[in-house]
Amino acid sequence: MTVMPFRRQVTIEWGDCDPAGIVHYPRYFAMFDVSTAHLFQVVLGCSKREMLRRYDIIGFPMVETRASFFIPSKFGDTVTIESYLKAFNRSSFEVSHRLLVTDGRLGIEASETRVWAGIHPDDHERIKGRAIPAEVVAAFAENNKTQTGESGP
Amino acid sequence: MTVMPFRRQVTIEWGDCDPAGIVHYPRYFAMFDVSTAHLFQVVLGCSKREMLRRYDIIGFPMVETRASFFIPSKFGDTVTIESYLKAFNRSSFEVSHRLLVTDGRLGIEASETRVWAGIHPDDHERIKGRAIPAEVVAAFAENNKTQTGESGP
Amino acid sequence: MTVMPFRRQVTIEWGDCDPAGIVHYPRYFAMFDVSTAHLFQVVLGCSKREMLRRYDIIGFPMVETRASFFIPSKFGDTVTIESYLKAFNRSSFEVSHRLLVTDGRLGIEASETRVWAGIHPDDHERIKGRAIPAEVVAAFAENNKTQTGESGP
Amino acid sequence: MTVMPFRRQVTIEWGDCDPAGIVHYPRYFAMFDVSTAHLFQVVLGCSKREMLRRYDIIGFPMVETRASFFIPSKFGDTVTIESYLKAFNRSSFEVSHRLLVTDGRLGIEASETRVWAGIHPDDHERIKGRAIPAEVVAAFAENNKTQTGESGP
Repeated sequence: MTVMPFRRQVTIEWGDCDPAGIVHYPRYFAMFDVSTAHLFQVVLGCSKREMLRRYDIIGFPMVETRASFFIPSKFGDTVTIESYLKAFNRSSFEVSHRLLVTDGRLGIEASETRVWAGIHPDDHERIKGRAIPAEVVAAFAENNKTQTGESGP
Repeated sequence: MTVMPFRRQVTIEWGDCDPAGIVHYPRYFAMFDVSTAHLFQVVLGCSKREMLRRYDIIGFPMVETRASFFIPSKFGDTVTIESYLKAFNRSSFEVSHRLLVTDGRLGIEASETRVWAGIHPDDHERIKGRAIPAEVVAAFAENNKTQTGESGP
Repeated sequence: MTVMPFRRQVTIEWGDCDPAGIVHYPRYFAMFDVSTAHLFQVVLGCSKREMLRRYDIIGFPMVETRASFFIPSKFGDTVTIESYLKAFNRSSFEVSHRLLVTDGRLGIEASETRVWAGIHPDDHERIKGRAIPAEVVAAFAENNKTQTGESGP
Repeated sequence: MTVMPFRRQVTIEWGDCDPAGIVHYPRYFAMFDVSTAHLFQVVLGCSKREMLRRYDIIGFPMVETRASFFIPSKFGDTVTIESYLKAFNRSSFEVSHRLLVTDGRLGIEASETRVWAGIHPDDHERIKGRAIPAEVVAAFAENNKTQTGESGP
C-alpha cells in the first residue's frame, strides 16, 4: 500500500529569515507543525478546534523530532512540504515531512513522534497520553485507499 | 577530559506557549539557537557580530538536529539550558543541549550539527562550508582545561 | 480616485495562539508585514528580493505603527487582510491594514509608516532613508487606475 | 507623584533579526508583552499563572497599541526596556514602554491599552472585560510610594 502525502505550498517571507538571508531553522518546525495539523484536518474532515473537542484532547505535543537540512531557502522562495502519516502507535503517531525547494530538489527531511494527549485525570495541571481512537486510525486508512484508488475486492 | 557545559536560565513566557498552555516546541529550538551563539561568544570572548567579521563567515546554519521532549514547560517556569560542544569536524561542529525543568529533572535532550559557513566563492547567492579555524578549536580546548582545573603536566 | 486594497486570506494556526487560545498579538504584526511585502510585489511585479536589488535598498523598516484590536481570532479561523497604500512621502510611505474576521466584521484596524532605506553612504553599519523612485510611485498610481477601471480621457 | 518604571535588559539575538540585520519589528512587541507581564508579576508579587487563577481572568489581551521606532537594534546589542503603568480604567489599563539602545539613546517609544479579561459568562468561547480589582490598583499605588520614598504625612 502506497501512502499518499498531504502537500502544501509555503512562501518564505522576509520575517522567516535571519541576517544570513536564509530561513531561521526554528521557523521550519513551525511550518511542519502547521502541516501536521492540516494533515489531520483534511483526513478527519474537521478543524483542529473541533478535533480537540470531539476527542477530548488538548493537542498532540511533540515527543521526538529530527530534521536534516540539505538546501537553505531564502525569502521569496516558494517551497512545497509533503507530509504523511508513517505509523500509529497506541497513544502516539509518527509523521514524516519532506520540504522540496523551488526547483523540486529535497531541501529538508524531517520526522516527528507526537503523543495524543489529554488532561491528566489526577492532576489538571499535567497532560497524559491517551489511546488514539480507532475511528481516527480508520480515517487515515480509508483516506489512503481512496487516494490510491484501491477499492477492495 | 570532562567537558564543562555552558549554562543559562530561561524564563518561559506567555508568548512562548500555545493554547495547551505549554511551550510551542519550535520556540525551544529558538532557545537552543541562542544557547549555541552564547556558548561561542563566551568561549571566543567576542560577540557573534565580531565573530562573523573576524572569521569571514555568514553564521553557522543547521545541518541536522534532533530533540526528545520528556517534560513540558509552562509559562512562568524557569528552566536551565546546559549546552556543550561535543565535537569539531573539518567544517562542522556538534553541540548538545539539555533542558532541565524547574525541579531539575531532564525536560529535553537535543543535539545539533552545524556548518561553519561562508559565502560561496563562485556564487554570492549560495553558502559554503569552510574549515573551522584552528584558533577556534584551540579556544574551546583551552576553555575546557581552565574550567576543569587541568593545567597539564 | 478610489484606492483598491490588496486582499489575502490567512488561516490562524495553533502556533499563532497563546494560552488564552487567541492570536498572540505580535503575530498580527508579522501578518501585516507579509501583506505590505506582497502589496509591493504585486504592484511592482517582482519579488522582494528583486526589489531590493533593483532599487539598492535593504528593505523598508518600520517608523511608526498603531493597531486597534476589536475582535480576537482563534486557531482554525480564516481571516481576510486588506491592505492599501495610503500615501507616499519623499522617503517614507504609509500603509493601512484591515483584518476582517470569519463573518466579515472588522477585527483589527492598523496603520504603518515605513522608510525606504538603503545602507548609509558614510557608515556601512547604519541605514538611511532614500527618495522613493518615481517609477515606484507611478506603478501604484497605474495599478490603481487599472483596478478602478479608470482609463483617462 | 512620580511613577517609577520597571526596567529590564534584553539581548538582541540572531533569530530576532531579519535579512537587513536589524530586529524584525514584531519581535519588539513580543518583548513589550514580556515586560508588561513582568511589571505585573513584580508589583503583585506572584507569577502570571497565579495571577490568572487568583483573579479568574484569561489574561490581558491588547486593545490598542502604537510604537515609534527611532533607532534600529542589531543582534548582539543589549537594550534596556523601561515600562510603567500609566493609567487604570474600569476594565482596562495603559502601559508605556521606552526602549533605550546600547548607548542610552531612545530607540523606541510605545504605548498600549489592554483589557482585564475573563471568560464571557454567557458564551465560553468569548472573552469579556472585567472590573480590575481594587487590590490590583492599590498594589501599584503602594509600589509607587515605596519606590519613590513617599511615606505620607
